[in-house]
Amino acid sequence: MDITAVNSLHYEDFVSVFGNVVEKCPIVAAAVCSQRPFNSLNSLEAAISEFIDALPQSGKEGILRCHPDLAGRDLQRGTLTKESNEEQARAGLDALESTEASRMAQLNQQYKTKFGFPFVICARMNDKDRILQQLSERCGNEVELERERGIEEVKKICSLRLHGLVNTEARNKL
Amino acid sequence: MDITAVNSLHYEDFVSVFGNVVEKCPIVAAAVCSQRPFNSLNSLEAAISEFIDALPQSGKEGILRCHPDLAGRDLQRGTLTKESNEEQARAGLDALESTEASRMAQLNQQYKTKFGFPFVICARMNDKDRILQQLSERCGNEVELERERGIEEVKKICSLRLHGLVNTEARNKL
Repeated sequence: MDITAVNSLHYEDFVSVFGNVVEKCPIVAAAVCSQRPFNSLNSLEAAISEFIDALPQSGKEGILRCHPDLAGRDLQRGTLTKESNEEQARAGLDALESTEASRMAQLNQQYKTKFGFPFVICARMNDKDRILQQLSERCGNEVELERERGIEEVKKICSLRLHGLVNTEARNKL
Repeated sequence: MDITAVNSLHYEDFVSVFGNVVEKCPIVAAAVCSQRPFNSLNSLEAAISEFIDALPQSGKEGILRCHPDLAGRDLQRGTLTKESNEEQARAGLDALESTEASRMAQLNQQYKTKFGFPFVICARMNDKDRILQQLSERCGNEVELERERGIEEVKKICSLRLHGLVNTEARNKL
C-alpha cells in the first residue's frame, strides 16, 4: 500500500490497518486519520508523534502500560499481538537460555516495581544481549527519564511497523 | 471485586480488568491506574472522565472511531468485543427484522459519511426502536455537538461496564 492508498482508506479500514502501530492503542491511529491526506509516510509518522507528545503525562504512561513485558507472560501464554510476537522472536526472546530468562524476568520485575510501567525497547533494533544490558542500565534511571526513553522507543517501534505497512518506494507505487 | 481490591491490583491486572471500559482504549484505564488509591468507584469513574475530557479533539474523535457500528459488520462477523456483543444483544440489535436492519445500515452510513466517526449510543440504556430514532435525529446535528454527544455516551457505557466489574454494595465488600 502506498500513501495514496492510505489516504483513500475508509476510516474504519485505516484504524484496522494502523490500529496497532502503537501497541494496543488504536486511539492513536484513529485520532490522526482525520488529518489525511498525508503527503508521505513521514507526515503520517509525524502526526502520530505529535499526538503522543500532546498527551498528558498520564497518557504517556498509559501507552507504556499497554506494552507487554519482553519475554514475559504474554510470550509464554501465546497472547502477544502478532506484531509483538514477531518482534520478540526476531530478537531471540522466544529462545532464551534458562539463566537469561531468569535474569530478564528478575530485571523486568525490578523495573516495573520501580517505575510502575514496563520496560519498553524497540526489540527489532536490538538483540537479546543488548536488551538485557539496556534493561539493567535503565533500571538505574529516574522515572522522568524512563518515561521519555520509553516513549522514544514506542516511536521507533511505531516507525518500523509503519514502514512494514506502507510502501515508500516510488517505483513500487502502482 | 470491591474498591479495596481494585486499589491493590498490580497495574497489569488493573489494565487487564478495566482495559475495555472504554471500548478498545486500554490506554484510558492504563493512564488513570497510577491515581490509585481511589476512595470509591465514583472516584475511578471521575478520573476516567477527566482523562477523556483532557484529550485533544482528535483524541476524542479517536475514541469514537474505536467503537463498532451498532448492528454492523463486527456484529455480523462475530468480531465484537465481549462487552459490545452483550450490550448490542441486550438491546435486540442481533435480531433486527430485515427492514430495521436496512434502515440501521443506511443511517449508520449516513452518519459516518457526515461526521467521519461512528454513531455511539449506550445500547443498554436504549432499545432498538429508541436507537433507530436517536440515530435518525442525530444525523441532523452539527459535528461539534455530535462529538460531545458521542463522548457523553462513551461515558455512560463506561459507567455501566465499571459497575459490572466493581462491587459497590458495602455488605458485599468481603
